[in-house]
Amino acid sequence: MIDKLIDRIKKTNAPIVVGLDPMMKFVPDHIREAAFREYGETLEGAAEAVWQYNKGIIDAVYDLIPAVKPQIAMYEQFGVPGLAVFQRTVKYCKEKGLVVIGDVKRGDIGSTSEAYAAAHLGKVQVGGSVLSVFDEDFATVNPYLGSDGVKPFLNVCQKEKKGIFVLVKTSNPSSGELQDRLADKRPVYELVGEQVAAWGEACMGSGSYSYVGAVVGATYPEQGKTLRKIMPKAFILVPGYGAQGGRGADLVHFFNEDGFGAIINSSRGIIAAYQQEQYARFGQQGYADAARAAVVAMREDIAQALGAGPV
Amino acid sequence: MIDKLIDRIKKTNAPIVVGLDPMMKFVPDHIREAAFREYGETLEGAAEAVWQYNKGIIDAVYDLIPAVKPQIAMYEQFGVPGLAVFQRTVKYCKEKGLVVIGDVKRGDIGSTSEAYAAAHLGKVQVGGSVLSVFDEDFATVNPYLGSDGVKPFLNVCQKEKKGIFVLVKTSNPSSGELQDRLADKRPVYELVGEQVAAWGEACMGSGSYSYVGAVVGATYPEQGKTLRKIMPKAFILVPGYGAQGGRGADLVHFFNEDGFGAIINSSRGIIAAYQQEQYARFGQQGYADAARAAVVAMREDIAQALGAGPV
Repeated sequence: MIDKLIDRIKKTNAPIVVGLDPMMKFVPDHIREAAFREYGETLEGAAEAVWQYNKGIIDAVYDLIPAVKPQIAMYEQFGVPGLAVFQRTVKYCKEKGLVVIGDVKRGDIGSTSEAYAAAHLGKVQVGGSVLSVFDEDFATVNPYLGSDGVKPFLNVCQKEKKGIFVLVKTSNPSSGELQDRLADKRPVYELVGEQVAAWGEACMGSGSYSYVGAVVGATYPEQGKTLRKIMPKAFILVPGYGAQGGRGADLVHFFNEDGFGAIINSSRGIIAAYQQEQYARFGQQGYADAARAAVVAMREDIAQALGAGPV
Repeated sequence: MIDKLIDRIKKTNAPIVVGLDPMMKFVPDHIREAAFREYGETLEGAAEAVWQYNKGIIDAVYDLIPAVKPQIAMYEQFGVPGLAVFQRTVKYCKEKGLVVIGDVKRGDIGSTSEAYAAAHLGKVQVGGSVLSVFDEDFATVNPYLGSDGVKPFLNVCQKEKKGIFVLVKTSNPSSGELQDRLADKRPVYELVGEQVAAWGEACMGSGSYSYVGAVVGATYPEQGKTLRKIMPKAFILVPGYGAQGGRGADLVHFFNEDGFGAIINSSRGIIAAYQQEQYARFGQQGYADAARAAVVAMREDIAQALGAGPV
């Protein structure tokens, strides 16, 4: 799957992942109202609104981008109907040829991580049947529990040719409380980065990248520079661009010299572009076209930053 | 909710939580076969088997224990039907008067943690409706992302009178890889324990305990002793008893001198008791009675250990 991701990045010339994080306040009125007319102001109604909203965005941008990253919390908040739409979104994106990164941040001990890995990347055995469940291509994984929590995901990845992105240095303001603590004079995120590199050794794609990637926030470019060197074969999933304050110029050091090795996420900057002054001309009805325009602008911003080389 | 938990511990005289972690291999043949006859070897069939299995155990033990802890991964692996049974299990347990700890180990940044908190402990707004979703009483939370990831849960807990247990020192063998790292000569789990104590200051129940608890594995009694002192007002949820190797005598230091402050989880030791030699006489048909016998034995083991005082 890391090969497919790289292949699609080459074809689209855009190391971009669109975060499908459909907060209800992003959904245009006409979509929300139609869904509520059909299903009422219920979890089913909310889920339908999310689905129609997602579908519009996916149809508008799928040819421009290699991957999407649905954030499962935004679906889980609408309960069982919401999770059914998460599954439907994953399936629809895969049909469109997109690589799907499930932003699930799961992580637990042994047999429990096995169950999460089966749910999101693998298959589950029910009697004589072997069934796919949510079936994303990649999943994000939390490293707090150590190797026990990560290895069940690696086992499934090896079998199913899928991948993970391990949280290393997250984009939020308080990420440093734990991740920046110095242990033997080195921050925790570096130690986790070393683990990512080690786990990746046994999990190589056909090229020079492993399918054990890392999450490192665009909001921490200096840390990104260090982590790039610690994990030369890991793809870095970079959240925090746009709405959270990361800029194109901050991204340069997340890439390797081959021009690969990073994929930049934007969520509300794309999916709620029509709510920004810059794209207000599209209006609510044109929310999907606004998303497309925002993807094009993001592609330019990144290309310019990379063209400029390290700063 | 922390008050309700303490009240139920007093009434049952059992600081015990039963982990409802229904792996398919624990489900007796007659339940699995009946479910597959009705729904086929499908996710629906698996979910139905889990539900019938859970219901038998809950009916058999609910009067003996204060709380249950369903592990959501074991439901999530059966997709949308599995998560519907998670929800049904939570609801059924609450109707039986049990406190429900959702073992979800969620944790993300700001608005995403808000969504998880709404899904599991709070309510979600859909148009003019305000709806409950999974609606557990407590949830487990992963601290790797720092305060940003935890505070949205605290806000919901304050509003809804619910609670969380933050992962501090987990029971698995590799928990030390990250959690035992020394930062300023002190292990990471102690630093997280201090955060738990600080978060709890603003989140006190009506007695001497806060509703910000901690997860500390029974497999690490020495660390439990230290953490007990660092977080005197936090309830400690203690996994790892039984199947993972923790014994009654290891548990003493997790409690305060008032005899409270800890609740001990056992999952397969209870729910799959009939598969142990000690309870084999119950057979598959008697799996629920075996679970009840195992709860009684666990209660005795803990009472004896506590009666003996600190060792």
